[in-house]
Amino acid sequence: MSNSIGERIRLTIFGESHGSVIGGILDGIPAGVELPLEYIQEKLNLRKAKGSISTSRQEEDVPTFLSGIHQGYTEGNAIAFILKNKNVQSKDYELHKPRPSHADYAAYEKYFGYMNLAGGAIFSGRLTAAFVVGGAICQKLLEDKGVYIGSHIKRLYRFQDRSFENYEKDIQKLSRLNFPVLDSSISKTMQEYLLKIKEEKDSIGGILETAVVGLPVGLGDPIFDSLESNLSKILFSIPAIKGVSFGLGFDFAQYKGSEVNDVLFYEKGKVKTKTNHNGGINGGLSNGMPLVFHTVVKPTSSIGLVQETIDLQTQTNTTVEIQGRHDPAIIHRVRPVVDAVTAFVLLDAYLKREQECLWQNSV
Amino acid sequence: MSNSIGERIRLTIFGESHGSVIGGILDGIPAGVELPLEYIQEKLNLRKAKGSISTSRQEEDVPTFLSGIHQGYTEGNAIAFILKNKNVQSKDYELHKPRPSHADYAAYEKYFGYMNLAGGAIFSGRLTAAFVVGGAICQKLLEDKGVYIGSHIKRLYRFQDRSFENYEKDIQKLSRLNFPVLDSSISKTMQEYLLKIKEEKDSIGGILETAVVGLPVGLGDPIFDSLESNLSKILFSIPAIKGVSFGLGFDFAQYKGSEVNDVLFYEKGKVKTKTNHNGGINGGLSNGMPLVFHTVVKPTSSIGLVQETIDLQTQTNTTVEIQGRHDPAIIHRVRPVVDAVTAFVLLDAYLKREQECLWQNSV
Amino acid sequence: MSNSIGERIRLTIFGESHGSVIGGILDGIPAGVELPLEYIQEKLNLRKAKGSISTSRQEEDVPTFLSGIHQGYTEGNAIAFILKNKNVQSKDYELHKPRPSHADYAAYEKYFGYMNLAGGAIFSGRLTAAFVVGGAICQKLLEDKGVYIGSHIKRLYRFQDRSFENYEKDIQKLSRLNFPVLDSSISKTMQEYLLKIKEEKDSIGGILETAVVGLPVGLGDPIFDSLESNLSKILFSIPAIKGVSFGLGFDFAQYKGSEVNDVLFYEKGKVKTKTNHNGGINGGLSNGMPLVFHTVVKPTSSIGLVQETIDLQTQTNTTVEIQGRHDPAIIHRVRPVVDAVTAFVLLDAYLKREQECLWQNSV
Amino acid sequence: MSNSIGERIRLTIFGESHGSVIGGILDGIPAGVELPLEYIQEKLNLRKAKGSISTSRQEEDVPTFLSGIHQGYTEGNAIAFILKNKNVQSKDYELHKPRPSHADYAAYEKYFGYMNLAGGAIFSGRLTAAFVVGGAICQKLLEDKGVYIGSHIKRLYRFQDRSFENYEKDIQKLSRLNFPVLDSSISKTMQEYLLKIKEEKDSIGGILETAVVGLPVGLGDPIFDSLESNLSKILFSIPAIKGVSFGLGFDFAQYKGSEVNDVLFYEKGKVKTKTNHNGGINGGLSNGMPLVFHTVVKPTSSIGLVQETIDLQTQTNTTVEIQGRHDPAIIHRVRPVVDAVTAFVLLDAYLKREQECLWQNSV
Repeated sequence: MSNSIGERIRLTIFGESHGSVIGGILDGIPAGVELPLEYIQEKLNLRKAKGSISTSRQEEDVPTFLSGIHQGYTEGNAIAFILKNKNVQSKDYELHKPRPSHADYAAYEKYFGYMNLAGGAIFSGRLTAAFVVGGAICQKLLEDKGVYIGSHIKRLYRFQDRSFENYEKDIQKLSRLNFPVLDSSISKTMQEYLLKIKEEKDSIGGILETAVVGLPVGLGDPIFDSLESNLSKILFSIPAIKGVSFGLGFDFAQYKGSEVNDVLFYEKGKVKTKTNHNGGINGGLSNGMPLVFHTVVKPTSSIGLVQETIDLQTQTNTTVEIQGRHDPAIIHRVRPVVDAVTAFVLLDAYLKREQECLWQNSV
Repeated sequence: MSNSIGERIRLTIFGESHGSVIGGILDGIPAGVELPLEYIQEKLNLRKAKGSISTSRQEEDVPTFLSGIHQGYTEGNAIAFILKNKNVQSKDYELHKPRPSHADYAAYEKYFGYMNLAGGAIFSGRLTAAFVVGGAICQKLLEDKGVYIGSHIKRLYRFQDRSFENYEKDIQKLSRLNFPVLDSSISKTMQEYLLKIKEEKDSIGGILETAVVGLPVGLGDPIFDSLESNLSKILFSIPAIKGVSFGLGFDFAQYKGSEVNDVLFYEKGKVKTKTNHNGGINGGLSNGMPLVFHTVVKPTSSIGLVQETIDLQTQTNTTVEIQGRHDPAIIHRVRPVVDAVTAFVLLDAYLKREQECLWQNSV
Repeated sequence: MSNSIGERIRLTIFGESHGSVIGGILDGIPAGVELPLEYIQEKLNLRKAKGSISTSRQEEDVPTFLSGIHQGYTEGNAIAFILKNKNVQSKDYELHKPRPSHADYAAYEKYFGYMNLAGGAIFSGRLTAAFVVGGAICQKLLEDKGVYIGSHIKRLYRFQDRSFENYEKDIQKLSRLNFPVLDSSISKTMQEYLLKIKEEKDSIGGILETAVVGLPVGLGDPIFDSLESNLSKILFSIPAIKGVSFGLGFDFAQYKGSEVNDVLFYEKGKVKTKTNHNGGINGGLSNGMPLVFHTVVKPTSSIGLVQETIDLQTQTNTTVEIQGRHDPAIIHRVRPVVDAVTAFVLLDAYLKREQECLWQNSV
Repeated sequence: MSNSIGERIRLTIFGESHGSVIGGILDGIPAGVELPLEYIQEKLNLRKAKGSISTSRQEEDVPTFLSGIHQGYTEGNAIAFILKNKNVQSKDYELHKPRPSHADYAAYEKYFGYMNLAGGAIFSGRLTAAFVVGGAICQKLLEDKGVYIGSHIKRLYRFQDRSFENYEKDIQKLSRLNFPVLDSSISKTMQEYLLKIKEEKDSIGGILETAVVGLPVGLGDPIFDSLESNLSKILFSIPAIKGVSFGLGFDFAQYKGSEVNDVLFYEKGKVKTKTNHNGGINGGLSNGMPLVFHTVVKPTSSIGLVQETIDLQTQTNTTVEIQGRHDPAIIHRVRPVVDAVTAFVLLDAYLKREQECLWQNSV
């Protein structure tokens, strides 16, 4: 069903943007894992609206755990948690005027007008806070095994960040940045431009580049559980993401096979590839090289400018001026969500892989 | 598990490239649907290697149905089918030398050397023949409901086709083309270039653009079953696909929200959007506009040129000259597979949507 | 995963006996269904501990809905709800002394001692309150379609109730009874005996007989989704249930085929069977006759008598005197849970069946 | 979907009784397991109709493996196999006269007359041959880990076998018996009675008792994946099974809690229970004692006597004399099927448990 995902571990999301709480359930995490709540909080804080470049809606976002954690350790059963929605201003919305490029119109039709779409209901980015809680737990387990994940804003509108150079160091650097850009000079330019866009009541989007280091070979499964399949499914569950590509991605179309095949070689007894055009995945399986992918985040659909739209009550054309609180860009707030869901998918695959090895060792 | 996908309808794939048969099971198709086997065969034929621009491996690819079809109609239970693998030449492969950019090395590690990787085993594109059989059945049901799907080679290496202009007509045109290019002059150029690449023992890739017309509003589900999520998951199950994007896709990064928001308006009582930058999907739901997405197909990994690689037996660096039969490009053969899996996902969502409407009508 | 069940509709349960709340998520309920909260409350009240024949642990059990219900109607998305755990007395338990016939010892081993097993944690009957909320919603939808469910205590220890005579009337009668026994004279005897057992600090069990009327023909699916399969799976999820049988059940062993085959005949154009030894199910499908099954509820494991057990800390044999609040029997409180999960499974199958008919009608 | 089951391992069944082949897919079996095909064949042979006490329909039942096995070892991917249906005599059936207590009538309605119900189609016991292949593979893996499964005919009509005495020895004994009865004197009586029943053109049923030894503590999961839930779901997928109970089962209703609680004690440092009334399961988890359950197999529905029924073409009451080949009892042929599905469920739980331990050991 649409509120659950995963196989070895399973994340279930519940609630709505303007209800009293949202929450999640993460099932399949082994017992006895030390789980510092500060680690989870840190990831949640990265997602929070902050400073002048974000919406003024502020949520405290401190999760309450209902089960699965006891005295700082996982208990082995499902970890259930809730997050309060404190700052709800439903009056801001004119619900009969669907906002352009939002779910409003399609949801109105889908639910025959029965759904209270205030705040975007179940389609709101608010729910991604629960993705982050679930994913952060997974990220912690992966880090315990030496797997590290990081994302940066490769592009914001027409501004470009540099690419990853030293994956390990760059990922470490990103973990300390609220605004995740590797080149600090361009970071400042980007943030200044965001203020300008906010003044214009407009919005911009961009491209995130994500890298993962430390993955063993053989994560993922043939056919429908390729790493690319499972990563893209959950990445496209994040509102505003409209494209996902691995390695060279759409640039593969510009090259000949001889130019982009990643040839294998032994280096000190370890198998590597000379290039990493495939982004660390062959045949849907991790190949031991860094996992690299891109996601595009479209410009925030909610803008303050007057826009044309329809009135569902009068069935006439009209205009709408969205009064709610909005972000000039959400890409920096999407970043911890991308990291979180990536961790979720990789831990699921990691647990499968661990079991394959286990039986092998016991044969 | 990795060999099954779907919720209302479920497609399960089995077999290996170099076993005696491959097959599939499509569960969830209603009883009493007229199912002309020629329709399925026609789609399978589009996937076949043909003429000088493809591999010389030829499969007859006539499915045998084991259950679910009786006297030309669906019976209502699972439709199981097998396809014979006739043309197996395992001797062509040097299995201890993993082919660059193939699953070979990762699969060797994953399965601890126990898997017979001849012909790519379960990682072979051969299995997509079963995708096509299952998907073609779905495509037939959708066409009975007025939903049509078509894909063309938007780009092959450095050659560009024109975009969709009249969706309905273009989709109809594509259904008659073995080499699916809308601009017939560029089609010829592309095919000639493919012969040249074949002579060079090299390969190229490209970008498919897919469009779907006739979809009702409200297909798809919130959070993890967005149309984008479910389409991308299965699209990335097709070997060689490394990127999927919807509407403007990665180009969203170049625009402001005010430039790319799709504003709504009534036209003769029907809701439309003036532009379709979101590719017919908002909030993961179909919005009534044509569904449009792009997939990138990387250059065929198997090329005839000598390539560097490793020898898993001697654990040394070496070279490999792949002797099997290969395609200079597979994008035209991937086309019916993309259409098929698209049909599968959309029928799954369509059946869900139908039920939502049903209960509504009975309230 | 172990906290979710169902296909068309999906019930997910979360929380623990002694956490702050438990809850559930019911996904797949269509939009626009009128849902009187009193109906749900009424079912929950049947499960409550009441009067002198039950535990003194009292929960208010008024659910808070987090999503999916708006102004008395379903919205069409997942219905999430929580129930507060108010009356938690963890100090009653000596956690290092596993209670005989409880999950305590096995859970201790399974979770390596990391789980806080106070109150039975995730193994507690407390969670069945969430089953009832989810199931009551399903039961309401079924009643709107003319399907009615009722269960009575066919046997309590050595006391027998009469069998169903007029299914419709008996089911209606049961809906009004807190202590569900059809023969009111035996009902009184049973309740008196329960007081006696309570005084003895002992417990007893019994057999529930459940009947469902109004089901259309053809609910259920071949092989793994037989009605019997899906009903038994969820029935065995209710703590204390140790046996499930359909129709004649274990008595089938005493007869010849010619004695127990249910022969078919037309009565006023409608197909019926002369007997109903198969309990309304053939080949896993509903056949239009009343669905009838039995479940056995074992004597409450928690008794006030001193019992032998082990001490996990000292690894020695010892005794335990359970101090918590316990029921001399739970069979009457299990009744609404059995009704609820039955409604859940049948609505799931009903929705599938509806869609089969829908497509058929549109062909 | 109804043709697939399992979580860590997944069994998918396809085909129909009177199609050219049936088959199955078992996904999730680790790589590198030695798999003697004779072991599987031996289990299949137990299911075969044999001698005068069974139907004269004879199938060779030698599986062809399509993937997943190479040179006697599992490859690590899905194991797909087919079994030929050689001995099809569709002309024996008058399809418009539904056979009493068969799926015929319900299936006719469910599939709107589109299903070819010859031989019972997808409802036939024929498909359980594929259960046995899949389950035998699981049984082999469990035996490699010291887990053994055995079932005997506890009761056939009015004849009783003795209960298990020494589980290990009795299970070993049963593995050598075609007609699985522990008391050899009663075995002869039973088989003689079966010949008599066959002459009478009638049928009888019985009760199987199954035991499993060697299970570790902690298999199974809370709530919906209790061992009882998952075992019963698949057991009720076997045609003719109408009841499943664990430990004392329905006899629990006759006792007080103090009489049937299984008290714990240490014996030479190992935790045991003095009695095993709960059949080795507490709270849905294995507790280290032998797993014990009963299943009732109803008398074969197909009998040679003239029976009343309806004519679906003329919509009148009529009689039917079933001409096909039938068994006076199928309980001895159901035995390997029960063992197989038990092995499937237990291996699934075993693999989950193994992973729980694995992470624990690495913490």
